Amino acid sequence: MLLEGERIDDLQVKDYKIIQNTNGFCFGIDAVLLANFVKYKKNDVIADLGTGTGIIPILILAKSDIKKIYAIEIQKQIADMAKRSIKLNNLEDKIEVLNINLTQSLQYIEKNSVDIVTSNPPYMPKDKLLSTNEMMKISRNEIYCTLSDIMKTSSDLLKPNGKMYMVHRPSRLCDIFVEARKNKLEPKTLQLIHPKINKPANLALIQFTKNSKPELKMLDDIYVHNDDGSYTSSINTIYSKEFLDIDENI
Amino acid sequence: MLLEGERIDDLQVKDYKIIQNTNGFCFGIDAVLLANFVKYKKNDVIADLGTGTGIIPILILAKSDIKKIYAIEIQKQIADMAKRSIKLNNLEDKIEVLNINLTQSLQYIEKNSVDIVTSNPPYMPKDKLLSTNEMMKISRNEIYCTLSDIMKTSSDLLKPNGKMYMVHRPSRLCDIFVEARKNKLEPKTLQLIHPKINKPANLALIQFTKNSKPELKMLDDIYVHNDDGSYTSSINTIYSKEFLDIDENI
Repeated sequence: MLLEGERIDDLQVKDYKIIQNTNGFCFGIDAVLLANFVKYKKNDVIADLGTGTGIIPILILAKSDIKKIYAIEIQKQIADMAKRSIKLNNLEDKIEVLNINLTQSLQYIEKNSVDIVTSNPPYMPKDKLLSTNEMMKISRNEIYCTLSDIMKTSSDLLKPNGKMYMVHRPSRLCDIFVEARKNKLEPKTLQLIHPKINKPANLALIQFTKNSKPELKMLDDIYVHNDDGSYTSSINTIYSKEFLDIDENI
Repeated sequence: MLLEGERIDDLQVKDYKIIQNTNGFCFGIDAVLLANFVKYKKNDVIADLGTGTGIIPILILAKSDIKKIYAIEIQKQIADMAKRSIKLNNLEDKIEVLNINLTQSLQYIEKNSVDIVTSNPPYMPKDKLLSTNEMMKISRNEIYCTLSDIMKTSSDLLKPNGKMYMVHRPSRLCDIFVEARKNKLEPKTLQLIHPKINKPANLALIQFTKNSKPELKMLDDIYVHNDDGSYTSSINTIYSKEFLDIDENI
């Protein structure tokens, strides 16, 4: 079941596991925070854009039952890992992996049919390459999908008043808001994540509502670490000691 | 020198004073934070859009000498107070009050000629009226100028690579960023102000650069109060015990 460089990580919740490639992009605290940030109902249909190894859909299903999650991933090798993780967890009837560029989503999912879109997209613009590893580059940089693609696709997929949940870098907030507004996705809540108290935020959780009125609500900031390096109580509550092997090198 | 309802407040720096109307908009901590946030050089020309009683130009000149500040205010009664405060402080050769709608600025100030624009604009959209007092309504609500007007005017006034400094509500961040980008003003730094630790930010200091590349830098957050209600050391440093009579009902 495992290919070269792959390992199985135990998510320590419902016995769920995830297959990751140690040479590729392993899920981090941003995925855990996003999965915790999403609000959904039992009969919701969700689309996760740029699902990677499927961590967001699996973490969501670990929290509660959901009708259906489309997990969209452009990289064949990574989509294949997601498919095997889903099989490993017996979630084939809940999660459908689409190994496509997310801009093609409308060929597979009906327009205006999705209740919730989630996305933990590449954070860096195309020209800010940080890695020479091809798989990492595509996961981290906007090579095959831009913010504009993500916002347009999310808006097309979502029902009127549907919600989008995203985790991203604060450095991109202007890009994010401009593309969101252009695509009728209004940012409604913003929660900033700081590595510790007295450090500026380095992650942002944003909830958008399709066709909503402007007014952004700030939620309580989240601080990840105490001064002594331990997790803060808010992070421990979110983890609830459920998720091990978190890669913090995000 | 004083009209009915007016009082003179001592700014306790360089003996500077300001005339305010107790029935109108009195300057608050946001003005002090904005004046402290602005970076300028001795020979800079500054335009303050929506100057009110002239508090921002006077606080800037209290910190250091500046070539020239245009103080633009639409309300005749308030612009008149600003003029009298400027005279009271012997700053007539430094600050020129223009009692105009800021959208008319280009009739008085040459295009692309200003080094720095500052603005503590009305925070609320036109439809969110909080006051029945006409003077307060115009100071607080976008009745005579919208964010779009402020961003367009700032961009028109600024030299290439010129800087704009603004204080506003985080609830308007999407509106602000969308209008900024539309007018070639790129948000470069964002500093969030919290009423205390563990409360979400309720003010934002933003610095924009004309014609700059996208990338927003988060600065250290500022917390105004300690848990016991006293000012934090960062606020005490900013105040340096210089400014009394701060109205915190912003």
